[in-house]
Amino acid sequence: MIIVMHPSATQDNVEHVCKLVRDMGLKDHPIQGTNLTVVAVIGDDRKKDGDKFEQAPGVDRVMKVLQPYTLAAKADPKQRSEVTIGGPATNSQAVTFGGDAIPVIAGPCSVEGEDAIIEAGQAAKAAGAHALRGGAFKPRTNPYSFQGHGEDGLKMLAAAREATGLPIVTEVLTTTDVELVSEYADMLQIGTRNSQNFKLLEACGDSPKPVLMKRGMSMTLDELLQACEYILSGGNTQVVLCERGIRTFEDHTRNTLSLSVVPELHHRTHLPVVIDPSHGTGKAHLVPAMAKAAVAAGCDGLAIEMHVNPEKAWTDGAQSITPATLAELMPQLQRIAEAVDRTCAEASAVS
Amino acid sequence: MIIVMHPSATQDNVEHVCKLVRDMGLKDHPIQGTNLTVVAVIGDDRKKDGDKFEQAPGVDRVMKVLQPYTLAAKADPKQRSEVTIGGPATNSQAVTFGGDAIPVIAGPCSVEGEDAIIEAGQAAKAAGAHALRGGAFKPRTNPYSFQGHGEDGLKMLAAAREATGLPIVTEVLTTTDVELVSEYADMLQIGTRNSQNFKLLEACGDSPKPVLMKRGMSMTLDELLQACEYILSGGNTQVVLCERGIRTFEDHTRNTLSLSVVPELHHRTHLPVVIDPSHGTGKAHLVPAMAKAAVAAGCDGLAIEMHVNPEKAWTDGAQSITPATLAELMPQLQRIAEAVDRTCAEASAVS
Amino acid sequence: MIIVMHPSATQDNVEHVCKLVRDMGLKDHPIQGTNLTVVAVIGDDRKKDGDKFEQAPGVDRVMKVLQPYTLAAKADPKQRSEVTIGGPATNSQAVTFGGDAIPVIAGPCSVEGEDAIIEAGQAAKAAGAHALRGGAFKPRTNPYSFQGHGEDGLKMLAAAREATGLPIVTEVLTTTDVELVSEYADMLQIGTRNSQNFKLLEACGDSPKPVLMKRGMSMTLDELLQACEYILSGGNTQVVLCERGIRTFEDHTRNTLSLSVVPELHHRTHLPVVIDPSHGTGKAHLVPAMAKAAVAAGCDGLAIEMHVNPEKAWTDGAQSITPATLAELMPQLQRIAEAVDRTCAEASAVS
Amino acid sequence: MIIVMHPSATQDNVEHVCKLVRDMGLKDHPIQGTNLTVVAVIGDDRKKDGDKFEQAPGVDRVMKVLQPYTLAAKADPKQRSEVTIGGPATNSQAVTFGGDAIPVIAGPCSVEGEDAIIEAGQAAKAAGAHALRGGAFKPRTNPYSFQGHGEDGLKMLAAAREATGLPIVTEVLTTTDVELVSEYADMLQIGTRNSQNFKLLEACGDSPKPVLMKRGMSMTLDELLQACEYILSGGNTQVVLCERGIRTFEDHTRNTLSLSVVPELHHRTHLPVVIDPSHGTGKAHLVPAMAKAAVAAGCDGLAIEMHVNPEKAWTDGAQSITPATLAELMPQLQRIAEAVDRTCAEASAVS
Repeated sequence: MIIVMHPSATQDNVEHVCKLVRDMGLKDHPIQGTNLTVVAVIGDDRKKDGDKFEQAPGVDRVMKVLQPYTLAAKADPKQRSEVTIGGPATNSQAVTFGGDAIPVIAGPCSVEGEDAIIEAGQAAKAAGAHALRGGAFKPRTNPYSFQGHGEDGLKMLAAAREATGLPIVTEVLTTTDVELVSEYADMLQIGTRNSQNFKLLEACGDSPKPVLMKRGMSMTLDELLQACEYILSGGNTQVVLCERGIRTFEDHTRNTLSLSVVPELHHRTHLPVVIDPSHGTGKAHLVPAMAKAAVAAGCDGLAIEMHVNPEKAWTDGAQSITPATLAELMPQLQRIAEAVDRTCAEASAVS
Repeated sequence: MIIVMHPSATQDNVEHVCKLVRDMGLKDHPIQGTNLTVVAVIGDDRKKDGDKFEQAPGVDRVMKVLQPYTLAAKADPKQRSEVTIGGPATNSQAVTFGGDAIPVIAGPCSVEGEDAIIEAGQAAKAAGAHALRGGAFKPRTNPYSFQGHGEDGLKMLAAAREATGLPIVTEVLTTTDVELVSEYADMLQIGTRNSQNFKLLEACGDSPKPVLMKRGMSMTLDELLQACEYILSGGNTQVVLCERGIRTFEDHTRNTLSLSVVPELHHRTHLPVVIDPSHGTGKAHLVPAMAKAAVAAGCDGLAIEMHVNPEKAWTDGAQSITPATLAELMPQLQRIAEAVDRTCAEASAVS
Repeated sequence: MIIVMHPSATQDNVEHVCKLVRDMGLKDHPIQGTNLTVVAVIGDDRKKDGDKFEQAPGVDRVMKVLQPYTLAAKADPKQRSEVTIGGPATNSQAVTFGGDAIPVIAGPCSVEGEDAIIEAGQAAKAAGAHALRGGAFKPRTNPYSFQGHGEDGLKMLAAAREATGLPIVTEVLTTTDVELVSEYADMLQIGTRNSQNFKLLEACGDSPKPVLMKRGMSMTLDELLQACEYILSGGNTQVVLCERGIRTFEDHTRNTLSLSVVPELHHRTHLPVVIDPSHGTGKAHLVPAMAKAAVAAGCDGLAIEMHVNPEKAWTDGAQSITPATLAELMPQLQRIAEAVDRTCAEASAVS
Repeated sequence: MIIVMHPSATQDNVEHVCKLVRDMGLKDHPIQGTNLTVVAVIGDDRKKDGDKFEQAPGVDRVMKVLQPYTLAAKADPKQRSEVTIGGPATNSQAVTFGGDAIPVIAGPCSVEGEDAIIEAGQAAKAAGAHALRGGAFKPRTNPYSFQGHGEDGLKMLAAAREATGLPIVTEVLTTTDVELVSEYADMLQIGTRNSQNFKLLEACGDSPKPVLMKRGMSMTLDELLQACEYILSGGNTQVVLCERGIRTFEDHTRNTLSLSVVPELHHRTHLPVVIDPSHGTGKAHLVPAMAKAAVAAGCDGLAIEMHVNPEKAWTDGAQSITPATLAELMPQLQRIAEAVDRTCAEASAVS
């Protein structure tokens, strides 16, 4: 932490700040510049409310120096974690994020019915996807909209897994459902609207299942990694990050897909990074180009909304691609993956 | 809903869209313009996923026409709701939002201890505030930071209420705590990070206590009012909205306080609107000016962080004003309130 | 400037950075913390590209400490500048920004014709406004839209000044027009789209007329004050700042009016601060509330779009209030102004 | 244009709106829905201020239907324009944007001196770049920073072109320099801060040289294409669009590079689309990944800042990559380009 004093600050002001620093159990190191004085604070101040120094007389502002996360941080620049979902325990193929392979999670926004999700799973598998997504518990902006089939939806997903061998990824909305969803799912998804629902994150820290942690739509990367820290510090180290678009002034998409997070997160954390080009654009016609861009940027996986008949989808129809589009996209992704020395073709390990 | 066709759309495309509209149980009304065709959709489409029409061939985009909320909407332009907190049931003074009076909720970010919160409550009361705020359950970005005293914190708040007669406002973080917090608090606060935690909103719909619903930091007003609809449709009609700043590119404040929501929300909804200039700026030196601006803009209440010694606050020190500053501010607010034919002086009804 | 090294940086990395600092003619001061090292840079680095240190091996990031502007900065906390427009030279009333009075600039977006602008000026004066605005050179997003009457428009404005005694404020779009516009106008306006048109700012630095400098719609305050520095360093010290709304994700207004800039700019600069609630919201029904809020927040003036018949306005009809609304608003503003020990009633000095 | 009436609007309100529509020379088509009435407006309303209807009694809001640009729009979905820079006239290699080849423009932010720019040009050429960029007129946020060598800088660029055969791309800041810059440059660049400097755009419409039109940092795509319309309607059809990052809340980059504009612009316009990953991130370590992503997304060119010694660059050092990094990147880009059936290797046509 660096405390920047006003040019007009007095020596007394500086000394008062230094005392406050020492009162917090940290070491003060004032430096007098040509225009103003700064006080460098030495010691681990990450758990402290350093901003309050802005209230001390003569302080202009406080600048943080240390990364506010530890378990998510890299121990060394090359550290990369692998997270595997599925496998013998759920009688599905094991799929690994964070290695050379780039798995594709595909499926509809909502589980609409058992036949529908099985059909979707088969179409996803036929197109070459590696895992199946679908929502049983749906966080809906409008309270009067379809809220998902709940536990029945989880059973339908399990049936689709049985029919296809694809591991399943599904969202959990509240602490009291974590155990239930963990029984069925191969991977728990934390949605963007719950990205700072810290009690839910804590509950996922107790789950035996890997977590797909979506970035909040107005979350910085520091905040995202601190949110992961809630899960990691609970003992669940199987966390995969997911960028799904941020909220900006842009109006040609529903969200702005910020692909620069891929290299930056790889710079900061060992956790794998998945891109969701469906929510990341909100427009099906933009999904293939952005999926390709994500692979070229170095992502460790994709989450793509696919619906057998988007015109008739119960939810998120505008951003769902068809199985035919996915089938056409997969070999293109593979070509890009090869160009960056990765693969999309065999993302699943032999289980 | 208006479905805008591409200039290049064929007659078949238009007919297909019209059929999809009828399949949804709505009425189609195509209009051929000079450059393109639009299909007006007649009927209540608010519970439908209209965006999926963007997937039909020849469709350019879909534009929504109806407000997506009903209980929060005004029945007539003059409708205003009043929400009262406190009163005989908790042996505190009754305070009403939505009338001529503009109550001020003041207090520290966190309940730090019983003595501290009683001292804060007495200082708030002495300065002229009408209710006491303080966090017992704290949503912290950093998992290693102080997370609040929990139920003990609620008891400390109750002690402060007993000592001062001020009703208490405190945050609830998770569904399983709603009942507990409702036992102690006069008003439940939904924080910005839980503004689309729909399960929590539903749980608050079952609480007998009024709710202070904070706007999410990247929420549109339509989304805010739909979130309220989760509470209102659960049977709890005692909802007060709170603007606490949005996330933008600005860097001179922690959030951008968007005061235009005051007249716009009064235009759209009967619910009272409170402004939080503390989170809305993140800087104590900006709080008085923005509190005054909020009153002039027509707000129905203020929520202000105040700490006896901000330099030593456990949390949010940078944005907390002192009791002395609050005491100086209250008569200024009263002058502004009078200039807009309101009052800050007697916001509490005789209980 | 503070250069933050990576935790993994070597002693060689630190020494290399220190050498780069000395090569720039500045003094290095490395500080070894518990987790990492920072290098404090001593000396005036404001004209240097300090960010490039991010390229040196082992550097994590660079944090600036000094304010990047000097003429716009306050010499002492109480310094306030006054800027006067109009007066004997243009046979108009002198109007001062930055004193106790809060002048209101009102008028249509575009000068539509001589009769129209005279009528608008008379209506503005009758309502109690202190200066007349109107565009002769219009920056239009769409090239096929009305672009203003140009020099003829300036003559029409001059006629309106003659008819009313109100000084006139009008926009200048390009360097080659600065001299011409300066001949007619009492105050040159720099629009939001030209806020970083540095050649235009330089040209205004040579003008004898005061400048109303609008904030760019995505400009930080540091950038705004640096833009002013182009005008001030050219020798024109008569600069008034104007907030007119920023671009954010919000969709209930055309821009987000960020009123916190009023106290923050007063904290940083001696220049007066005007608020434009018309562009700042884009909606006429929100203008009165935001004008009142601006006065309560401490602004030094208002710029309000007013049209005799907004339904028929050539440009910006949606955000223009009527003379009747302005006439109703002025005494309300006066009440607010009095509540903050200012006045809107006698903003014009006797010339 | 669709005019949405309030649910509470009267029949008189609707009729008044219909009359206003007819007064504008357009045709009204009111449609009564179950909850409210909308008035569809038939005719070309693109040059009109339709928003002003929001002022008519009973109107809720106005929604635009037509694209506000015509020359930039596609006549048919497959239309693509090619823009060629360089060639015999400047004794340089011809380079074409908009075909299968994806040219790379590389070079320093500023022309620092003749030797420096020649060395940079040779390094760019050796690495495989197709055109040389460098600023002679620099738009600097800080007025006291280096502002470029002006005409001398243009001469240095010409010397570098002569030495390397690479066509040169350089920024123009003001109308009065367009002719001068056009004499030297193979392509004029409009910077982000001048993206709505309409007089400058008009002046470029008169230039014989192609224009690289950078998107403003808070510009929507509709606004970008309307800005191009100023150039196109002046008779200069040689326009290439450039995304260089937008301003958002993100703090891990200087701007947010929005790659979804590539497929969306290809959907809307026939003009080629170039990506600038240097300004688009502001961080050299992110440039290679984003350059690869841009090619995968389908861009028609790249503009990359490269400096022989970024640690010592006069400007933009933090985002400039070295010649060695560029040389390593080019074959990677080529692999990605091949994966999407394009090429980066032979972007220059034989002249």
